[in-house]
Formats: sequence, structure tokens, C-alpha cells
Amino acid sequence: MAKRKKPHFKRVCLIGIGLIGSSLARVMRRDGLADHIVACARKAETLETVTRLGLADSVTSDLVEAVAGADLVIICTPIGAYDAIGRAIGPALSPGCIVSDVGSVKQAVIDALSPHLPDNVHLVPGHPIAGTEHSGPESGFETLFEGRWALLTPPAGTDRKAVEKIADLWRSAGSRIEIMDPVHHDQVLAITSHIPHLIAYTIVGTATDLEDHLKSEVIKYSAGGFRDFTRIAASDPVMWRDVFLNNRDAVLEMLGRFSEDLAKLQRAIRVGDGDAMEELFTRTREIRRGVVEAQQHVPPMPQDD
Amino acid sequence: MAKRKKPHFKRVCLIGIGLIGSSLARVMRRDGLADHIVACARKAETLETVTRLGLADSVTSDLVEAVAGADLVIICTPIGAYDAIGRAIGPALSPGCIVSDVGSVKQAVIDALSPHLPDNVHLVPGHPIAGTEHSGPESGFETLFEGRWALLTPPAGTDRKAVEKIADLWRSAGSRIEIMDPVHHDQVLAITSHIPHLIAYTIVGTATDLEDHLKSEVIKYSAGGFRDFTRIAASDPVMWRDVFLNNRDAVLEMLGRFSEDLAKLQRAIRVGDGDAMEELFTRTREIRRGVVEAQQHVPPMPQDD
Repeated sequence: MAKRKKPHFKRVCLIGIGLIGSSLARVMRRDGLADHIVACARKAETLETVTRLGLADSVTSDLVEAVAGADLVIICTPIGAYDAIGRAIGPALSPGCIVSDVGSVKQAVIDALSPHLPDNVHLVPGHPIAGTEHSGPESGFETLFEGRWALLTPPAGTDRKAVEKIADLWRSAGSRIEIMDPVHHDQVLAITSHIPHLIAYTIVGTATDLEDHLKSEVIKYSAGGFRDFTRIAASDPVMWRDVFLNNRDAVLEMLGRFSEDLAKLQRAIRVGDGDAMEELFTRTREIRRGVVEAQQHVPPMPQDD
Repeated sequence: MAKRKKPHFKRVCLIGIGLIGSSLARVMRRDGLADHIVACARKAETLETVTRLGLADSVTSDLVEAVAGADLVIICTPIGAYDAIGRAIGPALSPGCIVSDVGSVKQAVIDALSPHLPDNVHLVPGHPIAGTEHSGPESGFETLFEGRWALLTPPAGTDRKAVEKIADLWRSAGSRIEIMDPVHHDQVLAITSHIPHLIAYTIVGTATDLEDHLKSEVIKYSAGGFRDFTRIAASDPVMWRDVFLNNRDAVLEMLGRFSEDLAKLQRAIRVGDGDAMEELFTRTREIRRGVVEAQQHVPPMPQDD
């Protein structure tokens, strides 16, 4: 891989420091990308953990204090908090500061933050397609983003240097960069990520409602496919609640298509139409081939089971 | 682990020798469990591969020839072939022979085979909960069953020695054994395996129907959850067609519950009911904990992405 330009920041403020924020802090520490990292979180417990792990130079639960003097602010909280965060930090941001984020939905992020940001601040929303089912600052690690996509969705007219600097940050983390339209991003992610999570949450929820004698056995014999779903359905509840609340239209559109297709398959099972099943099951193998080819040089996500 | 009794067979006949059958052949080779292994498959190409890989002592496409003199016959084909196989081999089986299988549905297997088997033959249906998304004799490996469950569903009155011998075979492969009622097996597996596969096939199918500009990006950005589904949906099409055709009632019952739960979640998204989502997403984390605890000593399934 070609040697990448390392970006440099004087004072980076991470608002929210869970799996993603703490992994990014670890990357910035490793590569010396920031003179000072300040971590901001609501819970004292989180800030104590951050201090213990040495992930930041200073910690605070005060948003205004956190962003004062920062040339980069990255919001790493659930999306539902963005509006209040934008409202609080807007007046306190330094001129020329770049504001970015890591949220899984992008148009709603722009809608929530833009009204609060002064004109001399650069908004460069981002979304690293990386994660595990674990949450909190202890669960982060510096290789989380390696070989993964980082999607950037700057609004039209955003300063190109600011966009390039955020791209360089993610390149330092080992990510591949793509600039996307935010609405298009939300449609693509609805099918690749949001609907799979929604379905996994649903099927695991269905299992929790089973009669007790069945439920214990579902856990015991989960290796047959269900286990993959439980991993996805163990993802952070508040983060995912906010994804669905903030990408409603695209999620409902894709969910509608999924439900139609499921009804067709249900009918094929009911009437014993084996040909229809075999045709579908053969077609889906092709998609897998595309996925394997597209990602053959990407390391697997870490798994603990 | 306590030392297990190794079973011994004079002549083992494997009917169908794909991922599961070839893995079992490798175990029997490794542990010297059979004096002679005969592999039976319809396609000359499969038999050539088996010969090239040294998985069997002899090969044939003739069912009657295959089972002649065998003290163990294991059917490793898709379930849809069982009735014809039972009809063909029934009159050719030696007295005292054990007939087993590895199918993912168990009551339908008993219904298909029992009428064709003479009284002096022992039917011990089995189901190893193990597999990958790959098919064919090249894809098998001798550690596939290690730490996995092998579920046995002998009909009432089955000879206990025959059941114990099949249990010992799976113990040699490294499996944990459970004896189950076939109908109960089919209910448990409907939710742990059949519905997850059905859903994965559906969502990947939905993706194949997307507009072209979205479809290519779905493949590109599949790391967000979709990729796990493509792996499941790459499983053998004919095998899975037969699972759904042969476990119809349990699959439709569980699918009904899933669809109700999905409709509830869809409504929560539409009306913006974040509390309902958060409650569900928190509840599903608990199930994951149970799964991780139940399986913490089990090695992960091999994955190639």
C-alpha cells in the first residue's frame, strides 16, 4: 500500500467514546495524529475508564469545555443526541474547526447539526463501516477500521481541504474512503446494515418469547445459523434505536420489499413449490460470490464465539 | 476429556458424499473406524473426486451394490432423495445393519425410510449441527464436528446397542450427543436453523432484485451485517429446498411468529416508538449472553471472509 499522508491536529475532541470513539483514539495515539485528545462523555464511569486506559489527555462531561480550542470535533454518540450536542457546542466552536461524526445514518445527521454550526466551521459527516457487538471504551482496538470502508458525506460546498483531512484521518486508520451523497448512503446502508440488524433483532426477539422448554434448547443448539443472528442482535440498543428512528423512510421502503419476498417464499413452502425455492437459493449464491470477491483482502471481523 | 470407546464397523456405506459425508469419511479414515468404506453417489464426477482424495476404499453409483454386506449405511444426501433410496436399498440390506443419516429434519426422515426397511435392520436417524456454506467432497474436513452437537432421534423401541454405536461414532468425531424426540427436534431446529436460513435467503434475494446502481454498492459495502447473511444464503440450494419441503409445519408456525414480531417492529419505526425498540434490543442482548456462555468452549465455525 502506498504511504499515506498523516494528518495532524492540535486539539481533537471526541464526544462519546465507546467502541468507535475509543478505537479512533487508539489510532490517533498510535500514529501521533493529535497534540491533545479530550474525551467528553456524560457518565463519570466512562471518563474514569478512558483515563485508566490512557485514551485521552483530558476528560470532561462539559460539552462547551470539551470543544473549546479544538480544531477537530468528532461526535461518536448515538444519533439521537446530535441535536442537543449541536445546540450546545455550536457557539463554542473555534473558527476553522472541522466537525465530523461516525453515525450510521447521514442525512439526518446533517439535518440535526447544520442549523447549529457557525459558517466558519466545516461539517464533514463520516461513517466507518466497522464494528463489533461489543460496546464501551474497553471494547475498542486500533485495528478495527483496517480494510474497512469509511464513507464521507460532506454537504455540497464543503471546504475540500477539510474533507481531505478527514479522509487522511481514516486512511491512517487503514480505511478505504468513498465520498457519497447522504441520501444515497442511507438507502445503501438500509439494505446492507439496517435491515439485517432489524431482522436479527426480530428473530432473536421471537426466540425470547418461546415456551421455556424450547427457549433453553434454542440457546443450546444455536450453532445452526441462529448464533450469527444473536451476535448481530447484541449490538448497542440505543445506537440502533436511533438508526431506525433516523432512517425511517429508507428502512420502511426496504422492509416492504423484504416482507413481500418473504411472503412469496412462505407461500412456496406452504404449497410445496420446490422449484421456486431452488431457483432463489441458487440465485443468492451468486451474490455471495460477489461479496467474497469484493472483500477477499479484508480481514474478518473479530468474533468471540 | 474422558477417553471414548471407538466403534468399529466392517463395511460402511456412505450414500451421498458432500460436505458432511466426506467429513465423516475423513474422521473414519483418521480413527480407523471402518475396515472398508464404500462411497455411493449419482455423479461420476463426485466419485472421481472421492477416489482422487482417497476418501473411500471403493465407489459406485449403484445403491444395491453399495449397501451389500454393509453393517452401517449412512445417508448423506438431500432429504428429498430418501424415499427413493429407502425403496432401493431396503431389500438389499444385511440383517443387523444400522441405517443412519445426517439430515436436518428428522420426523420426515423416519416417515420416508421406515416403510422400506426390513425388521432386522436398525434405523438410528442423526443430525450433526455443523456445516459451512461450502458443498461437495472437497469442502469436508475432519474437525468439522468437533465440539458440535450430534442429535440422534431413534424411533421408540430402537435397539439400544445400535443407538450407542452411532453415538460412539459421533463422539469419535468430537461431537456432543443428545437423544431427542424427532418432532421436538424439528421444532427446535425450525427456529435455530431453518428460519435463519429462510430469512437470509430472502434478504439476499431482495438485494438481487435491487436497481443495478444499488446492487453493486450492496456488495461493496456488505460488511455492515449483510455479509453474514450472504454466507448463510450461500448454503446448498437443494439441501435447503428439501429442508423446507420436509419441515413445513414447524417452519410455517415459527415464520408466523416471526412475521408478527416484524410487523410490530415495523410499526414502532413508522410511529417513532423508540422505547419499544430499545426494550426489544436490550432483551435480545440477554439471549446472546446465554449463547456465548453455552458455547464458550466451542471453536468458531471456519469462515473464509
